[in-house]
Amino acid sequence: MNDPHNIQARALLDLCAGILRNNGLTDRDAHIVANSLVDADLRGVSSHGVLRMETYLQRLNNRVMNATPEVKVFNETAATAVLDGDNGFGQVVSQRAVDVLLAKTKDTPIAAVSVRNSNHFGAAAYWAAQLAEQDLIGVAVSNVEPLMPPPGGAEARIGNNPLSVVVPAQTHRPIVVDMATSVVPLGKILNAKSKGEPIPEGWGLDSDGKPTTVPDEVINGGSLFPVGGPKGYGLAVIVEVLSALLSGGEFGTDIHSMYQELESPNRISHFFMAIKISAFLDPQIFKTSVDRYIDQIKSSPLAPGNDAIYMPGEIELKAKDTNMANGISLPPSVAAGLLTLAKKADVSEELIRSL
Amino acid sequence: MNDPHNIQARALLDLCAGILRNNGLTDRDAHIVANSLVDADLRGVSSHGVLRMETYLQRLNNRVMNATPEVKVFNETAATAVLDGDNGFGQVVSQRAVDVLLAKTKDTPIAAVSVRNSNHFGAAAYWAAQLAEQDLIGVAVSNVEPLMPPPGGAEARIGNNPLSVVVPAQTHRPIVVDMATSVVPLGKILNAKSKGEPIPEGWGLDSDGKPTTVPDEVINGGSLFPVGGPKGYGLAVIVEVLSALLSGGEFGTDIHSMYQELESPNRISHFFMAIKISAFLDPQIFKTSVDRYIDQIKSSPLAPGNDAIYMPGEIELKAKDTNMANGISLPPSVAAGLLTLAKKADVSEELIRSL
Repeated sequence: MNDPHNIQARALLDLCAGILRNNGLTDRDAHIVANSLVDADLRGVSSHGVLRMETYLQRLNNRVMNATPEVKVFNETAATAVLDGDNGFGQVVSQRAVDVLLAKTKDTPIAAVSVRNSNHFGAAAYWAAQLAEQDLIGVAVSNVEPLMPPPGGAEARIGNNPLSVVVPAQTHRPIVVDMATSVVPLGKILNAKSKGEPIPEGWGLDSDGKPTTVPDEVINGGSLFPVGGPKGYGLAVIVEVLSALLSGGEFGTDIHSMYQELESPNRISHFFMAIKISAFLDPQIFKTSVDRYIDQIKSSPLAPGNDAIYMPGEIELKAKDTNMANGISLPPSVAAGLLTLAKKADVSEELIRSL
Repeated sequence: MNDPHNIQARALLDLCAGILRNNGLTDRDAHIVANSLVDADLRGVSSHGVLRMETYLQRLNNRVMNATPEVKVFNETAATAVLDGDNGFGQVVSQRAVDVLLAKTKDTPIAAVSVRNSNHFGAAAYWAAQLAEQDLIGVAVSNVEPLMPPPGGAEARIGNNPLSVVVPAQTHRPIVVDMATSVVPLGKILNAKSKGEPIPEGWGLDSDGKPTTVPDEVINGGSLFPVGGPKGYGLAVIVEVLSALLSGGEFGTDIHSMYQELESPNRISHFFMAIKISAFLDPQIFKTSVDRYIDQIKSSPLAPGNDAIYMPGEIELKAKDTNMANGISLPPSVAAGLLTLAKKADVSEELIRSL
């Protein structure tokens, strides 16, 4: 159903790009950022969508984010590079990194770019998916500020560092793995708090490192539990090594919170990698096998109470179809926030009316 | 304490190598297999240690494993290769793959080898660690037979495919992540059964895809729950793509159980990757940063009831020190099994007495 309160993706994109342009980004960079955010809203991953605009602009106005970064490339080889993001928008820096990576894959079967001095890059899958469109297996990871204690610890020392891998298929949609390394993201704890509900045991720890079901005890000095305990811990550490330690960036407790330390540069790091399928076998044969693998998994008998089996990322890609057709339903608070930003930014009346 | 019932690593290695040599492996290959198994026992990962010898030899005698494989290299580029393991011991095939990979890293910053038609390769970390010794970030993964249902499914369709990443440090031990993608390995369910104990909810599903606390319901046609639900599911799928789909190997339901189908070739696949640290930055600077990162994590205040924080793999490396000094304590059933194999294999009396 095309709900009249929904906003079409195109209008939302133009609106966000307009706001960003009016805040000093080039038209190209404004569209890069807006595209990443709107794509997340289209896929139903609203935690990484346009609701981030307010924080981005606060940080920009506080001059802890750079509207016109000079992204520099260091230590370049045919297959690798280190980028310094000059504290630009994570999306602007990441698009540059992905472009550098894509150029390298013309001549080399595996390439990787490690990036320092960047900011929140939106959903990791957005970058890995760009790689998968070129018959590459795409990898995108990022460190974030400490949110999880190591097992046995009482204090957050490690980000719930997200990782994404995207694999192209032939007739099926790509397989899109995109996960934080905590059991749940902080957003779910904030949601429970706003509803006055307790959280299940196993989501978070209080400031003493003890399991708790009280959202506030997690939010105020507590931490998130790594998924699978030592497993999520191990994965988060590897993500930090690939992004921050390989790029010579900041890591661990030197990373400041994007939300709670609005006056400090974020200085997070990313890592992108592309594996060229044709180096191993004919991409058509590979993608046909991926289709067959998907069919095998999806044809499993169902467990009680389920009506379908979904591949990783499939639910989000279905949501994108729906939302492309029907428009995106923004929560009133997000729409109101955008409206304020749009009015300040002198965006056209027509676009503002689309909200 | 040096318990007189313990067996020294060197004696256990010679014993296993002797048995394997007497069963048709070359001396070199026999040592490759034995080294991997004894290293696992040294690290306290006995599930991947010499207790596997009996199954390996049963499979060898059933001619579904090849004592003298002709491992072939296909589709080679400067940075990549596909290997066909000719159904050899997983360790023999994997050592060949790691050697090919190490040779490639002389001239290229990132290299990967995907391997088909192989068998159980022991602990994944054993291979990734060899890479990390050369100032590489080492990656080793493998698919296995279906043991986990996809979320919403009632039937095992995906292996609890293990993955390992090893990162070198300067003065600290390497960071060793090595994990199966299920909440627990099947071994833990078998342990509970042998003790007549129930298992915690969340470990396994029965044959209808319903959570169960009865070990037998998991073992007989049930399945293991992926760690973190969709997260472990996603990771297991990616491992299968990198190993089996990229090498043109068998995958999913075409993989037979190593234990329960002793008359069928296993035909599993592996994937190894090496990232050369020096392509990104000076390895000394990198490893010093890894040390600093480790210090940051380990200095976290402790949660109640804990007396230390360990990095991924640290407990296993400490166990290795102890077991190198004091010898390895084998369960009586494993020692008895080895004794039977050793007597059949005409291994020296002196080695047999060391058991």
